[in-house]
Amino acid sequence: MILDQLAVPIVLAPLGGGPSTPELAAAVTNAGGLGFLAAGYLTADVLQDRIRETRTLTNGPLGVNVFVPGPPAAAAADAVAAYAASLAVDASLAGITLGEARSHDDDWDAKLSLLGADPLPVTSFTFGCPDPSVIAPLKAAGSEVWVTVTDPAEADEAAADGADVLVVQGSEAGGHRSSFRDDPADDPGGYGLLSLLQLVRARTSLPLVAAGGISTGAGVAAVLAAGASAAQLGTAFLRCPEAGTPAVHRAAVASADTTGMTRAFTGRLARGIRNQFMADHDYHAPAAYPEVHYLTAPLRAAGRSAGNPELVNLWAGQTHELSRELPAADLVAVLATEAREALQAAGARLR
Amino acid sequence: MILDQLAVPIVLAPLGGGPSTPELAAAVTNAGGLGFLAAGYLTADVLQDRIRETRTLTNGPLGVNVFVPGPPAAAAADAVAAYAASLAVDASLAGITLGEARSHDDDWDAKLSLLGADPLPVTSFTFGCPDPSVIAPLKAAGSEVWVTVTDPAEADEAAADGADVLVVQGSEAGGHRSSFRDDPADDPGGYGLLSLLQLVRARTSLPLVAAGGISTGAGVAAVLAAGASAAQLGTAFLRCPEAGTPAVHRAAVASADTTGMTRAFTGRLARGIRNQFMADHDYHAPAAYPEVHYLTAPLRAAGRSAGNPELVNLWAGQTHELSRELPAADLVAVLATEAREALQAAGARLR
Repeated sequence: MILDQLAVPIVLAPLGGGPSTPELAAAVTNAGGLGFLAAGYLTADVLQDRIRETRTLTNGPLGVNVFVPGPPAAAAADAVAAYAASLAVDASLAGITLGEARSHDDDWDAKLSLLGADPLPVTSFTFGCPDPSVIAPLKAAGSEVWVTVTDPAEADEAAADGADVLVVQGSEAGGHRSSFRDDPADDPGGYGLLSLLQLVRARTSLPLVAAGGISTGAGVAAVLAAGASAAQLGTAFLRCPEAGTPAVHRAAVASADTTGMTRAFTGRLARGIRNQFMADHDYHAPAAYPEVHYLTAPLRAAGRSAGNPELVNLWAGQTHELSRELPAADLVAVLATEAREALQAAGARLR
Repeated sequence: MILDQLAVPIVLAPLGGGPSTPELAAAVTNAGGLGFLAAGYLTADVLQDRIRETRTLTNGPLGVNVFVPGPPAAAAADAVAAYAASLAVDASLAGITLGEARSHDDDWDAKLSLLGADPLPVTSFTFGCPDPSVIAPLKAAGSEVWVTVTDPAEADEAAADGADVLVVQGSEAGGHRSSFRDDPADDPGGYGLLSLLQLVRARTSLPLVAAGGISTGAGVAAVLAAGASAAQLGTAFLRCPEAGTPAVHRAAVASADTTGMTRAFTGRLARGIRNQFMADHDYHAPAAYPEVHYLTAPLRAAGRSAGNPELVNLWAGQTHELSRELPAADLVAVLATEAREALQAAGARLR
C-alpha cells in the first residue's frame, strides 16, 4: 500500500477547479506526503499534460482524483431555467452572459482510458463508487483505487465493489460533499469526521484516509488516533505559494468568516465561506449538478477577475482560519512535528 | 483542576431528562472518570435529593449541569398554538391531552442557591454563559465552572466571562445542541467536533472537554490528540444498566438507524434517531423552547409507556450504534484500554 510507504501520513486533497497544480502535488510528495492532482473539470488531454508535468517535478508517488458522473439532476429543467432567471441581475451587474446549463460526464471514458493505460499509483473517485468493471482494470493496471465516502452505507458499498482504501470525508470539509447522491431530502448536516471514522472503522478493515476540517498537526494526530492511516488536507494548502488559489479566495481563507453548505454555485452541496451570492441564492438553488456549475461559471470567473469575493465560490473547510501561508514542504514538516507533539501530550493524559 | 486528578480522562455527559441517575454518575466517578448529574427539568429540591443520594454512592468528584434560561422564544405564541393544533391527531391517537406550552426558567435561582451553598466540585452550564456575577460566586464557593460552547464566538464569550473549562460540543452530539441561542437562521449543520476543537484550541489556553459522537476508545484518544483534556460521553452510556434510559430508547440506541436534527419535540434543535414524529413535524416545528417541550411531554410519556418509539425523543449522537451494553465501570475501563491502544497505533504512523 502506498499509505505504508509515506514518510509523513499526509495526503493532499485534490482541490479540483483551480487550486490544484502540478507544483503543489509534487511539493507534497517530495516532502514525504502524497500529492494529488484533480481531474475534475479538465479534459483528458489537459489532465495528461498535468500528469506529465508533475512527473517532471517528482519521482515519488502521486494520486489523481476523478469525478464519477452522477444520475440525471434531481431538479427539473424548468427549475434550472427559473434559477438562471433569478441570476439575471447578478449577470447584468457583472457584465457577463450566464453559461449554458448543460450536463456533462466530465470526459469520463477518456480519463479512464488514460489512467488505465498509464496509471498513477493512486486513482481516487468522488461523487460515487465506480462499478467493479471500472475498479478491477485500474487495479490490474497497477493503481490503487480509493473511493470517497460520506456515510456508513457508502463505505459498505465501496468496500463491496473492491475499493482498496476509503477516503472518509466529514461534513467539515470544504468544497463539494463527496456523497454518492445529492438529494435535497438528505440531511444537510451530515456526519462529522470523528463520528464517521468511528462508524466506518467498525465496519471494515480497509485503510482509511480522513478528510474534512483538518488544518493543524493536532488534527492530523486526532484522525490517526481515530484509526485513519493518513489525513487528507485541502483547505490547509490553499495559501501555499504552489497552489493555484485565486487572490480573492486566498484572502477569504485567511479570514475568520464562517462557512456554510450551499448549492447556489454548482447545484451540488458544497461548503464555502459565506458571501452575498450564497445569502441571495442558497434558498432557491436547485439540486442540478453540473448544470448549475456551468450556468454560474462566467459569473464566478468575473468575480475572480474583478477581485470581488461576493461572486466567487470560496470553498473552504470549517477550520480555514487556521491555514498557514507557507511553502507546501514547510507546511508538511510543521504539521508532522505538531502531530508528534500532540500524540505525546495525549499519551500523558492516558498514563 | 479536577481534570488533572482523574485517573481516566472520561466525563459522563449530564443526560438530562431521564437517563441521568445517581447510580450512573457514581459509577463513572468510582471508575476513575467524572460523573455528572443533570439539573435540567428538575426542581431544586429534587436535585438536592439526587445530589445527596449520589454522595452516598461515591466519595469522588462529581459535576452537575444546569440549563441557563434563555431569551423569550423566537417563535410567536400563535406559531406555538398552530403547532399544538397540528399535533391534535397524534394526541388523540395516543389518548392524551397535550401539555401547556409554558415558559419556565427551570428553577434557576433556587438551583444556583443550592449549588452555591453546598457546591459540587464542578458546575457546568448549557444553553448559555451565565453572567460573571453568577460565575464568580460559584468559583468562590469552591466549584469549578464549565461552560458548554458550540462555536468559536461562544468560546470567546465564556472565556471572557470567567469559565474555568470549556465543554466543546460538536454537531455530532445527541440531545440538545448547547448553543447560547437557538436561531432558525443559524446553520443547522454546525461545527464538527474535530474542527471546533482545533478552532477553540487556537483561541484559548483554557482546558477543553470534548463532546459529541464519541463512543469508542479511539474516539477518546482522538479528542485528546486534538488538545482536549478529557472526552465527555453521553450516548455511549445510555445502555448501561445504571442509566435511567427508557426501554424504547435503549432499543433505538442499539440500532443502526440514522439521526437528524429536530425542533419537533422541544422547540430547540436537538439530535435524535429519526422516527415518525420527526418525519411528520420537523418541517413546521417552531423555535420555542421550553414551550414545545412542555407541549409534547405527555405525548412522549405515552410513547415511552406504550413502548412506541415513533412518539419518543430518541436523543442519540451520530455513533450511537457503537454504544455497548456494559456496566458503567466496565465501559470506562474498556474505553481507556482502547484509547491507549489507539494512541500507540497512531504513534507508529508518525515515527
